[in-house]
Amino acid sequence: MDITDTAQRIISGDRRALARAITLVESGRADHRMQAAELLGALPRDRQALRIGLSGTPGVGKSTFIESFGMMLTGQGLRVAVLAVDPSSARSGGSILGDKTRMDQLAREPKAFIRPSPSQTHLGGVARRTREAVALCEAAGFDVVLIETVGVGQSETVVAQMADLFLLLLAPAGGDELQGVKRGIMEMADVILINKADGDLKATATRTCADYAGALRLLRKRPQDPAGFPKAMMVSALEDTGLSAAWETMQELAGWRRENGFFDRTRAEQAQYWFEQDVRAALLAQLDGAQARADMARLGAEVAQGQTDPALAAQQMLASLGHTRQ
Amino acid sequence: MDITDTAQRIISGDRRALARAITLVESGRADHRMQAAELLGALPRDRQALRIGLSGTPGVGKSTFIESFGMMLTGQGLRVAVLAVDPSSARSGGSILGDKTRMDQLAREPKAFIRPSPSQTHLGGVARRTREAVALCEAAGFDVVLIETVGVGQSETVVAQMADLFLLLLAPAGGDELQGVKRGIMEMADVILINKADGDLKATATRTCADYAGALRLLRKRPQDPAGFPKAMMVSALEDTGLSAAWETMQELAGWRRENGFFDRTRAEQAQYWFEQDVRAALLAQLDGAQARADMARLGAEVAQGQTDPALAAQQMLASLGHTRQ
Repeated sequence: MDITDTAQRIISGDRRALARAITLVESGRADHRMQAAELLGALPRDRQALRIGLSGTPGVGKSTFIESFGMMLTGQGLRVAVLAVDPSSARSGGSILGDKTRMDQLAREPKAFIRPSPSQTHLGGVARRTREAVALCEAAGFDVVLIETVGVGQSETVVAQMADLFLLLLAPAGGDELQGVKRGIMEMADVILINKADGDLKATATRTCADYAGALRLLRKRPQDPAGFPKAMMVSALEDTGLSAAWETMQELAGWRRENGFFDRTRAEQAQYWFEQDVRAALLAQLDGAQARADMARLGAEVAQGQTDPALAAQQMLASLGHTRQ
Repeated sequence: MDITDTAQRIISGDRRALARAITLVESGRADHRMQAAELLGALPRDRQALRIGLSGTPGVGKSTFIESFGMMLTGQGLRVAVLAVDPSSARSGGSILGDKTRMDQLAREPKAFIRPSPSQTHLGGVARRTREAVALCEAAGFDVVLIETVGVGQSETVVAQMADLFLLLLAPAGGDELQGVKRGIMEMADVILINKADGDLKATATRTCADYAGALRLLRKRPQDPAGFPKAMMVSALEDTGLSAAWETMQELAGWRRENGFFDRTRAEQAQYWFEQDVRAALLAQLDGAQARADMARLGAEVAQGQTDPALAAQQMLASLGHTRQ
């Protein structure tokens, strides 16, 4: 791959070049990783999309929301990329967003770009690749990058590390219990959207929204939140209501954070985080080769059988990797 | 240090040699780590102590319990070592068990050996060193190794990774709430001991014990638990009551696990865990040197300022470490 040429094509908005570049950053091959780093380094760093993380358990209507919300944004002339971090793809190879037919309007929209979650052997791998895909989409001139994930906790944490704003999508639910949403995810959310606020569920949605608004007031007050944030709002992806109010709210929060320095500071911290993660992952990747795996398995078995001490086996493993202990 | 000579001295019960060897495994210096691994590899692997993890928040009487329990064991002719994993020592340099005067009887007892938590920069370091100190005490012929920690969650997990049994020490408390004990710690406990079951607190202790017995029944049933375990019991370290019943209970559980294969299987898994942790820690230790720290700081600042992409900076860091990306 010609790096300079590919970079130019991405900048000029060539979707096929973007798709190929994302495939490159998703590859685990050593030469691909080097090329990917070179490409990311060659891209201009002056284009900035609004990066929005979006989480919600299955069944809350994430796909329908993304479709309606994305269509509204493209209708305003904005270019929208949709990416995903799917921890289940790390295990099963299956992935959310894999089926673009769930968002068939948005998938056909020229101003939109949808990419399913990469399959990787572990969440850390999925996350790093997605962070790099976000950077590629940003360089390609997208105005909004939506990063979807599914509400299980760990994947939200990594999405929050690459997003400017974090949305939590919830379904209307009776009772005052908070739908088993993990406290950690609640604490991450900048805006909670109660979806399906339509038809028979409207009244329930109103109650749910009030419950969460109350919980949010108790839960968090961070310096990077202006008055009134985090906020709970109602939307109906089906009836297309509340979506523009939600978008205005996101812009209000992003604008406030930009003015008060939190936007850039968060991005700086995130970039440092990914740099450090990437270095650590590369050092540990020395254990991924076939020979290293075989040595780890053999020494691990000796240790398990009590034939040698873990520390001595570790020294032997490091020697086989060509390291002396640092 | 002459490894063969030191190993011989440890095996023959030389306490000064043991103390020096623990100091060696606690060192972070590269040559010390190599020597430590050599020493651990040179020790016989046929001696087996019962390794008991012990957790409890400050104020429940851990020191008094260890003193009374340890004196009871040495009174039965058993040799007892007491070690500690203290996450606060990773931050402050202070340590639990630092003050042997809190256990002045046991500290003077020839059959007992007390060692405070090592100071390290992070919990992982404290944990690995303590695991190695346990192995040294075992080779030195101790019958029981008590590993003390303080109830904050993460340190319990690492202690459970080096213990055959896990005890949770609690104070009697009114009400039916579970004293804010983290669910994860409850799930780790094989035996919960309600301490201070004496004097005015006796009735409260009885109620607390019943509460926890009920909670344990709901919480866990693992294949490695015989009928009736996990168990809640009352002890008074002050009045020396319940301690021998508690010891019998521990022996009963350990015996059952030995007969049913769980004891050895758990030890095998633990040994493999520490081997893998040790390899990973050594690979990441390449970032600990002065030059590496300076490079990380410089590249991290460039990344934070948006001058370069995290992935490209990571490649540059790996190159400076003499690595090409794997």
